[in-house]
Amino acid sequence: MPLDAWASLGNNLSGAAPVKSVDLKVVKEKLYTAVLSDTLDSVGLTRQALGRSIRPLSEDLVMVGRARTALYADIYHVNPNENPYDLEIELVDDLKHDDVCVLCCNRSNRIAPWGELLSTAAQVRGAAGCLTDGLVRDIRSIREIKFPVFHGGIGPLDSKGRGKVIAIDVPVEIDGVGVNPGDLVVGDADGVIIVPQSVEEEIIKVALEKVSSENRTRNALRRGIPLRQVFEEFGVL
Amino acid sequence: MPLDAWASLGNNLSGAAPVKSVDLKVVKEKLYTAVLSDTLDSVGLTRQALGRSIRPLSEDLVMVGRARTALYADIYHVNPNENPYDLEIELVDDLKHDDVCVLCCNRSNRIAPWGELLSTAAQVRGAAGCLTDGLVRDIRSIREIKFPVFHGGIGPLDSKGRGKVIAIDVPVEIDGVGVNPGDLVVGDADGVIIVPQSVEEEIIKVALEKVSSENRTRNALRRGIPLRQVFEEFGVL
Amino acid sequence: MPLDAWASLGNNLSGAAPVKSVDLKVVKEKLYTAVLSDTLDSVGLTRQALGRSIRPLSEDLVMVGRARTALYADIYHVNPNENPYDLEIELVDDLKHDDVCVLCCNRSNRIAPWGELLSTAAQVRGAAGCLTDGLVRDIRSIREIKFPVFHGGIGPLDSKGRGKVIAIDVPVEIDGVGVNPGDLVVGDADGVIIVPQSVEEEIIKVALEKVSSENRTRNALRRGIPLRQVFEEFGVL
Amino acid sequence: MPLDAWASLGNNLSGAAPVKSVDLKVVKEKLYTAVLSDTLDSVGLTRQALGRSIRPLSEDLVMVGRARTALYADIYHVNPNENPYDLEIELVDDLKHDDVCVLCCNRSNRIAPWGELLSTAAQVRGAAGCLTDGLVRDIRSIREIKFPVFHGGIGPLDSKGRGKVIAIDVPVEIDGVGVNPGDLVVGDADGVIIVPQSVEEEIIKVALEKVSSENRTRNALRRGIPLRQVFEEFGVL
Amino acid sequence: MPLDAWASLGNNLSGAAPVKSVDLKVVKEKLYTAVLSDTLDSVGLTRQALGRSIRPLSEDLVMVGRARTALYADIYHVNPNENPYDLEIELVDDLKHDDVCVLCCNRSNRIAPWGELLSTAAQVRGAAGCLTDGLVRDIRSIREIKFPVFHGGIGPLDSKGRGKVIAIDVPVEIDGVGVNPGDLVVGDADGVIIVPQSVEEEIIKVALEKVSSENRTRNALRRGIPLRQVFEEFGVL
Amino acid sequence: MPLDAWASLGNNLSGAAPVKSVDLKVVKEKLYTAVLSDTLDSVGLTRQALGRSIRPLSEDLVMVGRARTALYADIYHVNPNENPYDLEIELVDDLKHDDVCVLCCNRSNRIAPWGELLSTAAQVRGAAGCLTDGLVRDIRSIREIKFPVFHGGIGPLDSKGRGKVIAIDVPVEIDGVGVNPGDLVVGDADGVIIVPQSVEEEIIKVALEKVSSENRTRNALRRGIPLRQVFEEFGVL
Repeated sequence: MPLDAWASLGNNLSGAAPVKSVDLKVVKEKLYTAVLSDTLDSVGLTRQALGRSIRPLSEDLVMVGRARTALYADIYHVNPNENPYDLEIELVDDLKHDDVCVLCCNRSNRIAPWGELLSTAAQVRGAAGCLTDGLVRDIRSIREIKFPVFHGGIGPLDSKGRGKVIAIDVPVEIDGVGVNPGDLVVGDADGVIIVPQSVEEEIIKVALEKVSSENRTRNALRRGIPLRQVFEEFGVL
Repeated sequence: MPLDAWASLGNNLSGAAPVKSVDLKVVKEKLYTAVLSDTLDSVGLTRQALGRSIRPLSEDLVMVGRARTALYADIYHVNPNENPYDLEIELVDDLKHDDVCVLCCNRSNRIAPWGELLSTAAQVRGAAGCLTDGLVRDIRSIREIKFPVFHGGIGPLDSKGRGKVIAIDVPVEIDGVGVNPGDLVVGDADGVIIVPQSVEEEIIKVALEKVSSENRTRNALRRGIPLRQVFEEFGVL
Repeated sequence: MPLDAWASLGNNLSGAAPVKSVDLKVVKEKLYTAVLSDTLDSVGLTRQALGRSIRPLSEDLVMVGRARTALYADIYHVNPNENPYDLEIELVDDLKHDDVCVLCCNRSNRIAPWGELLSTAAQVRGAAGCLTDGLVRDIRSIREIKFPVFHGGIGPLDSKGRGKVIAIDVPVEIDGVGVNPGDLVVGDADGVIIVPQSVEEEIIKVALEKVSSENRTRNALRRGIPLRQVFEEFGVL
Repeated sequence: MPLDAWASLGNNLSGAAPVKSVDLKVVKEKLYTAVLSDTLDSVGLTRQALGRSIRPLSEDLVMVGRARTALYADIYHVNPNENPYDLEIELVDDLKHDDVCVLCCNRSNRIAPWGELLSTAAQVRGAAGCLTDGLVRDIRSIREIKFPVFHGGIGPLDSKGRGKVIAIDVPVEIDGVGVNPGDLVVGDADGVIIVPQSVEEEIIKVALEKVSSENRTRNALRRGIPLRQVFEEFGVL
Repeated sequence: MPLDAWASLGNNLSGAAPVKSVDLKVVKEKLYTAVLSDTLDSVGLTRQALGRSIRPLSEDLVMVGRARTALYADIYHVNPNENPYDLEIELVDDLKHDDVCVLCCNRSNRIAPWGELLSTAAQVRGAAGCLTDGLVRDIRSIREIKFPVFHGGIGPLDSKGRGKVIAIDVPVEIDGVGVNPGDLVVGDADGVIIVPQSVEEEIIKVALEKVSSENRTRNALRRGIPLRQVFEEFGVL
Repeated sequence: MPLDAWASLGNNLSGAAPVKSVDLKVVKEKLYTAVLSDTLDSVGLTRQALGRSIRPLSEDLVMVGRARTALYADIYHVNPNENPYDLEIELVDDLKHDDVCVLCCNRSNRIAPWGELLSTAAQVRGAAGCLTDGLVRDIRSIREIKFPVFHGGIGPLDSKGRGKVIAIDVPVEIDGVGVNPGDLVVGDADGVIIVPQSVEEEIIKVALEKVSSENRTRNALRRGIPLRQVFEEFGVL
């Protein structure tokens, strides 16, 4: 399959058995978002990096895992006849090891869908972290338990009466980037990258090669070798 | 008085003697913005939390006090015949213990109405902190003296020739939330909550009860009990 | 020359020999952005401070140096026949001691023109820092080597296929403030100030005087003297 | 009931029989949004006017009717097992004479929930118009059949796969203003006003009186009488 | 080729001979942006419609043609040694019948790259219109000569010293939608659609069929048949 | 005086007798905003055109006159002890022939400082129009009496309790452009230009020459002469 055709795979929702062959531990130890972004660029997948508005709560924590998605809708009243947290609870109680909660709030800044209690529950289940374009609250407690959260802002507002989950494990978008259930989600101090599951093996392989080039480049630059000469030799910047 | 009617009380400017019966020390030690936000929500006061654009200068400082307001206006020249800081000086020199300077700049990002010198003057008078939707400057010095400031951004721009106080101790708005003189202002790492003075006693009482629920919930979640079961038991998320 | 006329000098590109008589070490040790902003204000140069959207990567690093500019353009494809980093490499390889790389991305948030490798190369050449309205990446490594970067956001996106330098050492704008090659650029925790080269001597001189006033003011305020009295004596706020 | 207490009534969802005693024809013929806004202001209901981002498709059409609401949620895929228009169809097929479709898209600009076909269906049922913060399409045809639409922008994007109705006849918000089912919605060239149902009788009565003052004021001004004198006499500006 | 794979074709820059078999006259007479948007949606090409910020200068003019692109860069000074309009002139002088000038200004609002003189020159050469995310000026004269312009705003600012073309006939983006040279550009009162050249034949064919369904739907709705019944029969909304 | 020095003159507030020698009738009949913008550019005054957010209420009306300024401040309550319209009334009652009311609302969208009644009063006094970055209301009536208004949006909100004039006849800014009392304000369908009073004679003279070049250019282009040839001959684009 030609690399150019990969762009369409992000929306692949076919029933084919998911390829979970990538070793997440290797990704976490050896790779980082910048090199993954460059690698995805190199195969024409240029829209996989979230923008500057999504930031880590703890810049020293790395998050690597697979997307478990929830789609929020803005609401404007409390319906006394329903549990507003129903689907949210269902998702969190079903979290598996290395899952990343991906909570799409459609860039709304009205709600904080994530906080300390959900962090605690998710961490107990081995989840790898949480990614949301909504707000996060209880930030000092979350930092203390070292649970990785990448968020669209900080604020104390509960979702009750303001937003509710209308679907889980469906395709969503965070900051304009599509995220499908099962996609590889990698976050560090520089931001967050979504690696579509269908191309992850190839991307990880190329990225690992690229990392060693960057190390050689850095060493050369430290020795004061001109940038032009270093770039010509290693092709990395 | 029915809780539904509270919404209108935010604008209560009647001359009735203010009820300052709440113990601010208890609020500072036992409560936090998230639980206050939930409590205000529960009585229909859903617009009391400032949004993500107002951030603490020092995330480890908590601010609890009563609003002393100043209303800024954008200006575009220096009037040589007046002291541009006149009302600002009047307000700061009149600050009492536990007062919070609330400087409304109408979300302007042209001025930094607050800096190290005013922090020093306010701290000497026992003020509890400063809340502004404008900018703050001299941030390293302010952090050093541990004076709590919640702000709309950081920048070195003096207000002279750009903005001036046109009224003090009047109703203002910060990030869309009304603040009346005397309102309870609570800020921590998660953000800032305005508790209208007329309802503060009731709110504090309910919030204190809610805190103990949350503690029990957290402990249950840490033991790995399913979220659904915990939520059903404690009703908190 | 009357001070009022200085406003027009920002665009002075005349061939007159640059006046580099200011001692950058003195600026770095004794001055800071807030006092420079006030001083520039006092001579009518009121648009020299960058706004709140430009932030330091490391709030404890100070940057003082002279602008070496690069102008980026957004692009939407990779041209296989050209080295996309050509002018960027030329600029960085030519950096002199105390130069500040000023990378104008026209407030674009699509690219991170700066990262660890360029920081390393610039630092080896004695550059004073980097100022950009674009993104920065590899932030943990940059912080580690203590290279000052003032940026418009954080993100992992390489410029390749998204932006390229179309000119170096030309006038640019960062956050609405004009920057000419050779202008004095000063950045600290409070933000960034551009001092036009033609007025820098005068500005530095006045700013140094202002600093000692502020110190006396602070001391008076700490002793609890009323703000009004202190302001009347020292004229500083 | 004191007028000050009205502010809380916007959220009144009690089962009390709706008071539909106001004659909509009189409102349409004699009143307009500016005078209604002033009247609502005068009783402390200062947040009932939509802002400048909501504009009429046809500036010469007036819309007066009662809110029938639909709440949209952003979605990011098509679910092949459901009719995406289900609730939307239910609402439109149930429209009564003088109903106004109020479609809350949470300020999303991804979808055009309204177009020519729905306008045709609504007009056949006697509906008074449509108000949405989303987009509208088929604008030339809608203008031709003279169906009033007040919208958040123009664009050809169908809602299928981008948004769907998750609830009808529930409280919503348009441009920050709460709209409850049954509220009076008035739109003209100047914008849109939401009159909470519980206060509409009083508001209409006061507004009608205010209109005649304005007419006298206008006539006086046309004769060249100084504004100050006219204002002192009629108290209107 | 499966329709799902089309998404990647937008970036197809291969040297294969362009398929210009579509009859533009038919598109102009029978199709419109709403039906094209729906048709593109139906094959998974969901990002081909420009958003609400791009508006027609004359809502009664339709534009159908092929993209001739120019990429602008923001600049901040006039270079006395070059003709700032060089590439712009080259593009306009080379316009062929049915070409659409697509001027990408990267959403900049600093320049009006298009005005009356260029409209006159383009119209003489038979060009179909102009699409830009920059500003347009001389709007009354352009409307008079009935030259279709779709723009990002209106303003009198010349590009000289503010922006210049850095490349022509290259891939660009307008309002987030990729436009390749030769792509079909269709604009009307509802907005603008970009049909990638590689899929245009199929899209036009399906769209023409969809149009007749819509006509039948409209007629049925006018007769008062319930929306649900009409939707079930024609599947169009 | 060298043209480069003009930039600083915008802030000239000296008491020297104003030079009102320009014939406003000539400006209105022969010039327009695009040619004035180009002329101001040519002498280095590149920040005199308002941006796309300020639009005419009636695109067929031209406004030429001298600025009479009012500076608004956002407020958040009604002070029962003062006439909120006091300074506004003073300004309007003092309007002279050819005056343009320039109402600076600091880009606030909370108030409509201008409406039909003030338009009527201003028109009676011979005022040339109104320019505001706030909202305007009663737009259909204002269009009917053909009073030129250039505004920042349309909305029914009265200023009472939301904003008030704090100074008249002082320097202000509209959309980032400084306006001093007495400056020449020119508005037409393309936008608004501020010509500083101190340079108006020179600007008008050069602009009149430029207009005849443009006419010759247009005629040449209509005859199909290549743009390059025409530009080389007339130097206008």
